[in-house]
Amino acid sequence: MPGIGKKSAQRIAFHLLERDRAGAEQLADALAQAASGIGHCEHCRMFSENDLCNICSASSRDASQICVVESPADVMAVEDATGFRGRYFVLMGHLSPLDGIGPKELGLELLESRLRTENVEELIIATNPTVEGDATAHCLVDLAVRHKVLVSRIAYGVPLGGELEYVDGGTLSHAFFGRRVVE
Amino acid sequence: MPGIGKKSAQRIAFHLLERDRAGAEQLADALAQAASGIGHCEHCRMFSENDLCNICSASSRDASQICVVESPADVMAVEDATGFRGRYFVLMGHLSPLDGIGPKELGLELLESRLRTENVEELIIATNPTVEGDATAHCLVDLAVRHKVLVSRIAYGVPLGGELEYVDGGTLSHAFFGRRVVE
Repeated sequence: MPGIGKKSAQRIAFHLLERDRAGAEQLADALAQAASGIGHCEHCRMFSENDLCNICSASSRDASQICVVESPADVMAVEDATGFRGRYFVLMGHLSPLDGIGPKELGLELLESRLRTENVEELIIATNPTVEGDATAHCLVDLAVRHKVLVSRIAYGVPLGGELEYVDGGTLSHAFFGRRVVE
Repeated sequence: MPGIGKKSAQRIAFHLLERDRAGAEQLADALAQAASGIGHCEHCRMFSENDLCNICSASSRDASQICVVESPADVMAVEDATGFRGRYFVLMGHLSPLDGIGPKELGLELLESRLRTENVEELIIATNPTVEGDATAHCLVDLAVRHKVLVSRIAYGVPLGGELEYVDGGTLSHAFFGRRVVE
């Protein structure tokens, strides 16, 4: 599991067996419930216990903006950092033909039907700035253009608090040519 | 010295004394020459042996764009990464009133005279995305607006190859609100 190696796993197992058998049973129940009870939101593909996730079912969220991210963790990151009030679409991955992941696996048909039936004004692409993320973004741009929806992409460049001297050349080059006019 | 601690310093000193006394003398000469001979370019404040640095004296460089950076290392970083063909202005620091560094210490008078006398079309601000760098950038924007020069700032956001999940909240928030329309 991520972040837990052999040593940590052994320590946790012995801790539960030696001192907290009741806790171990609670954890086992919770895991079993999660594994059987948590599916995907029918609307945005986020993890959810119900047919619709909390965000999609909330009437306070603005249906005119959809932020497209690669993974559920990205939804949490954007929620924590930005105060975004629109809705999401979770691809659950990125385009990767070698692994057999195409537009269908990313649920782009579902996204397309949302663009067709809902009154979406802006599609915000927040895929990772990797090769696969860029390819996925291109595909999303095509989709949005076909449905005449405004499409934007979050900014890539020098991270806050960073120093130019220590930033890799690719990022600096990207930041330089992606400069924007002030005022 | 940066990157050389007590142990490394001792190792270098003993290496030079035990095996390479001629090298030590060469290094001493080179250092003495550098310390006495290298000043600042009169035009952009970059380190230079002559009155004008290589970039300012090259006729092939485009005088209509000036990229403003904080330090000589930033000039090297931009040169290596971007293929920029304009000229530079090196602040040799950033605004920091507590340390007594104001517009005068950053040579803004010299930059202002360049904006006044040269045919500058774009001022590209590439200060670091820190609090001091931002304050310095504001000051530079004012200067450019006063001289009716187009002013732009390099992009700040998620670094290339990064993943949204691991980026700090400030950067992600900045990237989200700094998103740009595609097509």
